Amino acid sequence: MYNVGIDLGGTKTAAGLVNEAGEIICKETMPTRKGSSYSEIAEDMAGLALSVIRHSGLKIEQVRGIGIGCPGTADSEKGIILYSSTFGFVGSPLVKEVQKNIILPVFLDNDANCAALAESIAGAAIGSESSVAITLGTGIGGGIVIGGNVYRGFNYAGGEMGHMKIALDGEACSCGRKGCWETFASGTALISQTKKAAHANPESIINKLVKEDMGKIDGRTAFEAAREGDATGKMVVEKYIGYVSDGLINIINILMPQVVVIGGGVSNQGEYLLKPLRELVSAGVYGGKNIPQTEIRLAKLGNDAGIIGAASLGKK
Amino acid sequence: MYNVGIDLGGTKTAAGLVNEAGEIICKETMPTRKGSSYSEIAEDMAGLALSVIRHSGLKIEQVRGIGIGCPGTADSEKGIILYSSTFGFVGSPLVKEVQKNIILPVFLDNDANCAALAESIAGAAIGSESSVAITLGTGIGGGIVIGGNVYRGFNYAGGEMGHMKIALDGEACSCGRKGCWETFASGTALISQTKKAAHANPESIINKLVKEDMGKIDGRTAFEAAREGDATGKMVVEKYIGYVSDGLINIINILMPQVVVIGGGVSNQGEYLLKPLRELVSAGVYGGKNIPQTEIRLAKLGNDAGIIGAASLGKK
Repeated sequence: MYNVGIDLGGTKTAAGLVNEAGEIICKETMPTRKGSSYSEIAEDMAGLALSVIRHSGLKIEQVRGIGIGCPGTADSEKGIILYSSTFGFVGSPLVKEVQKNIILPVFLDNDANCAALAESIAGAAIGSESSVAITLGTGIGGGIVIGGNVYRGFNYAGGEMGHMKIALDGEACSCGRKGCWETFASGTALISQTKKAAHANPESIINKLVKEDMGKIDGRTAFEAAREGDATGKMVVEKYIGYVSDGLINIINILMPQVVVIGGGVSNQGEYLLKPLRELVSAGVYGGKNIPQTEIRLAKLGNDAGIIGAASLGKK
Repeated sequence: MYNVGIDLGGTKTAAGLVNEAGEIICKETMPTRKGSSYSEIAEDMAGLALSVIRHSGLKIEQVRGIGIGCPGTADSEKGIILYSSTFGFVGSPLVKEVQKNIILPVFLDNDANCAALAESIAGAAIGSESSVAITLGTGIGGGIVIGGNVYRGFNYAGGEMGHMKIALDGEACSCGRKGCWETFASGTALISQTKKAAHANPESIINKLVKEDMGKIDGRTAFEAAREGDATGKMVVEKYIGYVSDGLINIINILMPQVVVIGGGVSNQGEYLLKPLRELVSAGVYGGKNIPQTEIRLAKLGNDAGIIGAASLGKK
């Protein structure tokens, strides 16, 4: 049997046909009609799901169901988006709406939860009894998997690791608080830290790498400069990894998951990011070396995690 | 049937016979022989358990088992204390040792986990699908209960909420990090904040309340001064409750438990603490009023929580 997973994003919607091994055998994408009503978006998703099934050459009877990962708080039991700032949905019955257009069971969850589930089932955290997946991207996303199941909290809104305050007075965060982890350790925060450092240190290689155009600084620039031996680049990277470790140690002290999976754009730095991160975390967690330590691993599934996780929602 | 619960503390050991309703029907305490080996402490606990059963007038056949709550990291499956800084235990097989002296099944868990379980079974969080119990005392203790079971993490060391960094640069914490929640929001932190404020504001009522003897300042002093309208007292209390809310919002954003139970010495301030705390938390949690909110309640079981929770370990 197969399952369809849909990753509903702010700019594009991706649907994939996923086999029992958690592999995508066929994938299609379309632009998301952002600003449209939930019923229009539901219609698009149903159409994309049918299209990916058709193009795969499979019959609809070979598909068990359709899972959707959506940004925001998803009541996965009732199939309703309780709240999504991305789409402006409040209490939108997305599952019911998709089912008007397609005759398969439909399942729904938050997109970061889907990604965490995917890494746990078919990615970096396979076989772990518990895992936390962290995405260092525009913001910081988080998902918790315990005993093979997504932990959502009583109101389905858990896992908002990015909105954990790590500084009493810090930059204002989109959530309304100050000093959230996201404002220090997201990819966006790294870019802003790199810009500030480049500005304050005109001799830094960073300025050469972007040909003096600050607008070209991205999440890779500081790492690239650091690899070339640039002092400013090294300082930015070291401080940034320190911020990442601050939040990570907090999460580990509370949840002690067997595995933490690091994904998102910044995770492309691989061991250059993970090696110092592991050292900081190992030195900082409560209990230290007297107890078994959480393993920190790189995400394996990249952008496909959302689809694979969403597809697996229908398997239970 | 009945269960014995033992709360093994650094200074005293308390054992209680607990009925099916989670009520203590008979209780005894003895000083803890701190500095002794784990086998001597185990012998004491077995003796105390037998004594409390004898004095209750019950037969040993009416007792299902004995549960022990111990400070530190407890491998509840193997019955071993992996690490306890309080006693200096490392890999100590406490359960096996107690069973040398008594012919009943013996169970073991961390003491804060026992307290959280007790509040969930017979206290402030009865009937909730998930709860987090926070103890604002000498340090900050924490326990997580999900679906009626203690969540311990893969290495049994989860729930260390007190060691969540909320300030980048703060006071050094006993755990080795800086800026831990415990250094801002424990009872000990409140006392230190009260002392500093009293010293800086000689006109404050705080100084009169303790007859100019700073050594007499305790966790109640600032609240007492604030209730009498003292500006310094009010400022200390307001800032302190802000720190409590900072960590609480972090925990809620990650776990979204249905109920948070606040215990420990500071919780004796009751609604004077909880009312402003609820307002801060409600305004600060991610998703705000678009989603159902976590309830914050006062602990109900006080010092008995450890015994009641430990007793319930043997019920499953």
